[in-house]
Amino acid sequence: MKLMRYGAKGAEKPGLVDSEGQVRDLSGVVTDITADLLTPQGLAPLARIDPAALPRVAQPGRIALPWAGMGKFVCIGLNYADHAAEAGLALPAEPIIFMKPISAAVGCNDPVVLPRDSVKGDWEVELGVVIGARARYVSEADALKHVAGYCVVNDVSEREYQIERGGTWDKGKGCDTFGPVGPWLVTADEVPDPQALDMWLDVNGERAQTGNTRTMIFGVAQLVSYVSRFMTLYPGDLISTGTPPGVGMGAKPPRYLKPGDEMRLGVAGLGEQHQTVHAWDPDLIDG
Amino acid sequence: MKLMRYGAKGAEKPGLVDSEGQVRDLSGVVTDITADLLTPQGLAPLARIDPAALPRVAQPGRIALPWAGMGKFVCIGLNYADHAAEAGLALPAEPIIFMKPISAAVGCNDPVVLPRDSVKGDWEVELGVVIGARARYVSEADALKHVAGYCVVNDVSEREYQIERGGTWDKGKGCDTFGPVGPWLVTADEVPDPQALDMWLDVNGERAQTGNTRTMIFGVAQLVSYVSRFMTLYPGDLISTGTPPGVGMGAKPPRYLKPGDEMRLGVAGLGEQHQTVHAWDPDLIDG
Repeated sequence: MKLMRYGAKGAEKPGLVDSEGQVRDLSGVVTDITADLLTPQGLAPLARIDPAALPRVAQPGRIALPWAGMGKFVCIGLNYADHAAEAGLALPAEPIIFMKPISAAVGCNDPVVLPRDSVKGDWEVELGVVIGARARYVSEADALKHVAGYCVVNDVSEREYQIERGGTWDKGKGCDTFGPVGPWLVTADEVPDPQALDMWLDVNGERAQTGNTRTMIFGVAQLVSYVSRFMTLYPGDLISTGTPPGVGMGAKPPRYLKPGDEMRLGVAGLGEQHQTVHAWDPDLIDG
Repeated sequence: MKLMRYGAKGAEKPGLVDSEGQVRDLSGVVTDITADLLTPQGLAPLARIDPAALPRVAQPGRIALPWAGMGKFVCIGLNYADHAAEAGLALPAEPIIFMKPISAAVGCNDPVVLPRDSVKGDWEVELGVVIGARARYVSEADALKHVAGYCVVNDVSEREYQIERGGTWDKGKGCDTFGPVGPWLVTADEVPDPQALDMWLDVNGERAQTGNTRTMIFGVAQLVSYVSRFMTLYPGDLISTGTPPGVGMGAKPPRYLKPGDEMRLGVAGLGEQHQTVHAWDPDLIDG
């Protein structure tokens, strides 16, 4: 299943995408796509629905976060060997964990708004892993049983805030709009091998990032297992698993986001995102 | 006002503490102490209530998180000059931001459960600042208008995870039960000067930390203003503002938490916490 939510902020409706790519209205079945619905018990009845029996949504409008009630937005740093090389950093001995606040998460095509004094905005296409069953000291062998599905994430970053302003990476990762997620939550049954997914990101129509999840240093099962040793993962939690090469910071010379830039990105089978970059404008965050 | 919540996990009831320290049942007035209730519009009607007119709660039992719907748990590192010296670290040029996941937050007297392989569990008494009005690029002069109130926080930390396991501090800060908050949310009108609060922490009856918020490097108004440049703060968000000297890592030789240890800590006017440290036991987290 491809689960999604659509509509204006605060008025999102649940939907699913049928085999022809049409949005179908799920609001007659569930009031929203909540974390509870991402459990095996929640997904099973949805999987029995015939999408063709649901009303077609001709104009879904804004695509929202694919689920409500994200509990945490955990990110993994430097998880692609070629990206680590690009950043001039040694391969990590174990996964690097940092966090975005939930307030950074937005719909996949919502505006990306640079903070007022941003000079080093950057992009990172990533595979997002959505938890569907509580995970606590889970083994690698069992880890994928705790995954509800997958999604595209753009781990938008401000490199000056992240690296040059003291403290941890979190400072450059959590700005409002710095976490586009979606368009869909694609359930795990449709992603037989999460380590064989092509991914890409274009800036203004030019390819910037090209990668495949097979070059992750720590794979999805390892990451779910690892993170679950440091904090309990609950249904609706998101782990974004790191980015392949081609970020702006790694270009020679480095290249950073400016207002008017267009980012398009995707992961095979999980859909595409498209964001326009804006100078600081709080109305674009709330709107 | 001293707002609080009491009762078993998942069945918390709202309360307030009267001038004699008695818990009064607020559930006839509000269903819960939610983030919405922490706004000026939410607090004003509560402030007009005569606590003596509310039912007295003879046996409140467990003290829960003082409010529901915490949106983020932002922490400030190395914010006391004497603690930075103790840690052997230079004074930060600007505030250090890191984050705990909301899943780390627990009631003030709930068990602190060490992760399975924890060897360097540590304590940090801190002043918590609870946001009551959306804050985004707020000036220092206006910052305190965005504060609903204050609370005690124990920023429990695992130093090996935090410092020696690669990546950011978040890895050692977000374990389940590593964020006791409360007992109360004390509204800002009862805290005329947040930079003049004594604070202390005892381990097994011996004083470990002694401090006063006047020795913060960056004061509360500066911190709210600063953090609001990196992410919008919403009602119910919590900023924990750093710890004074006396953490276990700074002792000579260092001293770390072991099962059976008792932590007692407080901030003047904001109440006291008491946690018992346990070896890994997931039932203590969920129970």
